[in-house]
Amino acid sequence: MCFLVDTGGTDGLLAQKTLEITNEVLSSYKNQGGYDMLGRTKDQIRTTEQVNGAMATCQALKLDALVIIGGVTSNTDAAQLAETFAEAKCATKVVGVPVTLNGDLKNQFVETTVGFDTICKVNSQLISNMCTDALSAEKYYYFIRMMGRKASHVALECALQSHPNMVILGEEVAASKLTIFDITKQICDAVQARAEKDKNHGVILIPEGLVESIPELYALLQEINGLHGKGVSVENISSQLSPWASALFEFLPQFIRQQLLLRPESDDSAQLSQIETEKLLAQLVETEMNKRLKEGTYKGKKFNAICHFFGYQARGAMPSKFDCDYAYVLGHVCYHILAAGLNGYMATVTNLKSPLNKWRCGAAPISSMMTVKRWSRGPATTQIGKPAVHMASVDLRGKAYEMLRQNSSSCLLEDIYRNPGPLQFEGPGADAKPISLCVEDQDYMGRIKKLQEYLEKVKSIVKPGCSQDVLKAALSAMSSVTETLAIMTSSSTGQPPL
Amino acid sequence: MCFLVDTGGTDGLLAQKTLEITNEVLSSYKNQGGYDMLGRTKDQIRTTEQVNGAMATCQALKLDALVIIGGVTSNTDAAQLAETFAEAKCATKVVGVPVTLNGDLKNQFVETTVGFDTICKVNSQLISNMCTDALSAEKYYYFIRMMGRKASHVALECALQSHPNMVILGEEVAASKLTIFDITKQICDAVQARAEKDKNHGVILIPEGLVESIPELYALLQEINGLHGKGVSVENISSQLSPWASALFEFLPQFIRQQLLLRPESDDSAQLSQIETEKLLAQLVETEMNKRLKEGTYKGKKFNAICHFFGYQARGAMPSKFDCDYAYVLGHVCYHILAAGLNGYMATVTNLKSPLNKWRCGAAPISSMMTVKRWSRGPATTQIGKPAVHMASVDLRGKAYEMLRQNSSSCLLEDIYRNPGPLQFEGPGADAKPISLCVEDQDYMGRIKKLQEYLEKVKSIVKPGCSQDVLKAALSAMSSVTETLAIMTSSSTGQPPL
Repeated sequence: MCFLVDTGGTDGLLAQKTLEITNEVLSSYKNQGGYDMLGRTKDQIRTTEQVNGAMATCQALKLDALVIIGGVTSNTDAAQLAETFAEAKCATKVVGVPVTLNGDLKNQFVETTVGFDTICKVNSQLISNMCTDALSAEKYYYFIRMMGRKASHVALECALQSHPNMVILGEEVAASKLTIFDITKQICDAVQARAEKDKNHGVILIPEGLVESIPELYALLQEINGLHGKGVSVENISSQLSPWASALFEFLPQFIRQQLLLRPESDDSAQLSQIETEKLLAQLVETEMNKRLKEGTYKGKKFNAICHFFGYQARGAMPSKFDCDYAYVLGHVCYHILAAGLNGYMATVTNLKSPLNKWRCGAAPISSMMTVKRWSRGPATTQIGKPAVHMASVDLRGKAYEMLRQNSSSCLLEDIYRNPGPLQFEGPGADAKPISLCVEDQDYMGRIKKLQEYLEKVKSIVKPGCSQDVLKAALSAMSSVTETLAIMTSSSTGQPPL
Repeated sequence: MCFLVDTGGTDGLLAQKTLEITNEVLSSYKNQGGYDMLGRTKDQIRTTEQVNGAMATCQALKLDALVIIGGVTSNTDAAQLAETFAEAKCATKVVGVPVTLNGDLKNQFVETTVGFDTICKVNSQLISNMCTDALSAEKYYYFIRMMGRKASHVALECALQSHPNMVILGEEVAASKLTIFDITKQICDAVQARAEKDKNHGVILIPEGLVESIPELYALLQEINGLHGKGVSVENISSQLSPWASALFEFLPQFIRQQLLLRPESDDSAQLSQIETEKLLAQLVETEMNKRLKEGTYKGKKFNAICHFFGYQARGAMPSKFDCDYAYVLGHVCYHILAAGLNGYMATVTNLKSPLNKWRCGAAPISSMMTVKRWSRGPATTQIGKPAVHMASVDLRGKAYEMLRQNSSSCLLEDIYRNPGPLQFEGPGADAKPISLCVEDQDYMGRIKKLQEYLEKVKSIVKPGCSQDVLKAALSAMSSVTETLAIMTSSSTGQPPL
């Protein structure tokens, strides 16, 4: 088999750059990390012009199919292309594949994305090394910011793997509407409580999306984004902020001001990887601890922080066995989706926490994962009223989060650091899967099947010839079930629960 | 067996903090990284007061032995303690063990140190991930500073493992007396040459010791260090610099000025881990590339750099199999050194590049590794005239460096990135050793033995009863050999060659 594939990401697609993927070409990339075989760009296929450009390429090259690999934005693009191609009677079918390190493409069909396990394994090892190092030196607080975009899935999984002293999830901050000062105080109180136990070291994880979860910083970013949109130059933005935003902006240290002013990404979100929230927090905590020390309310040693950003160093890593398996199966599913002539579908594999021979392959219309968010505004949201695959936040009612919370106070005070070790390809640990994947009740399709089995069973028991009593009991029970479900469904948004 | 060991590093020794190492205590630390079982501090045992304090502890606790684990400074301390203890008829024997991530304790008896392999394996993986990422995004230059103190052993080994586009060894810079502007120009020319091949990405390794190898920065650091020594406060240092140093200081960006002014470490060297040389270089290169772009001498894309510091995240890592084996054998050697009643010796294992069953255990007097450097001055040198175990620089005539140079132009232009993958405990690659260890002619003691075998052979051939011709030939040959060696030895410094 051989394929013609567009290279250089979206830009490459529009410019009709191609590479024939032969077995020989593929052999040196198989089971490797990175996007270097085909390249990647960050631009969306959003405007009519871009969509038509993509269609022109597909028609010019007579492509049977366009396989789009990526996260929420890429798969939103895939759905839009599929629809446009179908309307225009373009023969090219579009298939999406869930691949993103952030783990934020997650719904009833997609349990996790390719790359998430690898990124979490590589980062968890590094975080654990930092924990050991903190415990060896006994004098530093390591503030570690984690790549992962707006949602905190990576930080959550890494915290479950490594047991650092603290992790501040964006979703928690947003739910509790904590200000930057609340967070600073939380960290300071933790430092103080640890000092009382004679511990002057610690490791604190901060997801890069945190900055957008802190209400006042989010509002400030929105204003800045709005001014960018109006074409105001970077130098003039600060003078055009509202009085409230301006006061916050002036309060912030110089380095972070510059970073907040950076032009937004192609999807309109802030340049999260460039905003050093960890340094901001470390600086605010240091100031506060020095103040407490001076006032005599804190009697421990001088607070010392060292800041880190973990992301780039994990992104091109050799994939874990789980990710390799998952990617191979998804690739195979793509082939079957295309062989069946489907368009606008995403390749899916569910029941991933079970052994490989129990995985369930499937295909789901991307449109079934799309919703219209009428209430969203600000950075990183799509145009109002336009359907999109939306990023899934960490579920604060989910089992993974519950697990994190159960351990949080012993993690904070007792240094129960855990080192999962470097990613292994053989021996014990080589088959480990993400903890957050394994604790959740997943296998949505499996459970739907289970329900269908129940219904079949009732049908087979209650059929002509059964006793009046059985029929009566069945009718009564099913009437009650039906009523309950009808009420639940009408009060919900109509979206299936995650 | 059970041991009483001092905890909390040097401070713990002086404060008589102890921990009984039982099998149970040890079991949770076996084959793990970090110094968290006993703790560590950075202070030397240097003053008479500290030495006497250490002796008082050993006598009070009736210690049979003090095992000192560390690099060049710790082993210098060990030698000094051994001598003082012997003079004072203190019964405690002192043994040194070569353990440091920097790999700069290296001589005819010590082929490598425990920790070096692990640090290089963990860092090489991360560098390789960055290379893959650079190649995927095709728009960034990653400037990566490597922990490793003044010598560039870690950077050299990682470069041999990962094949980044460039590595700037401190030893090369010092040997060629390159200024910061020369280095900037070298990088800019490389960026330009790559741009002509349509490559707008790259990975550049910078050892943290580079800053002390650049002549003018070294001179500036010396002046600052001198003023620190005179008790000049940080705020006043800049005004008391010589005109020349002051001019350089004022030219440097604000962030690096602050870092250069930090108080030196306990061994008088600059706080290398805190000086962001990679940011300084990235900034200078960006300025120069923008200038070339404006002048039209450079026609490529805008230069973008992202900076990283790799060190902390590798320091507490789970050790490689090689490091575990090496440490176990050294520990066993310590036991034999002490059983033999030796004092002031270092445990050694040579012939490390051969399979484990060919390793040669030994013990060498630490004093035989010590020299007096009368000509040294400035940061990170010991008191003039005092013997010390000195840091070994990268040997620019050695085979490892030669290997690096052979590949350097293809590494620079052709992106022949290599990913050694994550550290493995089983399967292929688990037994890999450092490349720089394997390419050098080592096994010094083995080669001495070989020589003795030759001498024995000559002796057994040329004995009463041999022919006149044989005697004549042997006399002539040996007279010439003896003369040659006598001349070589008299013209050398008397130090054995490394």
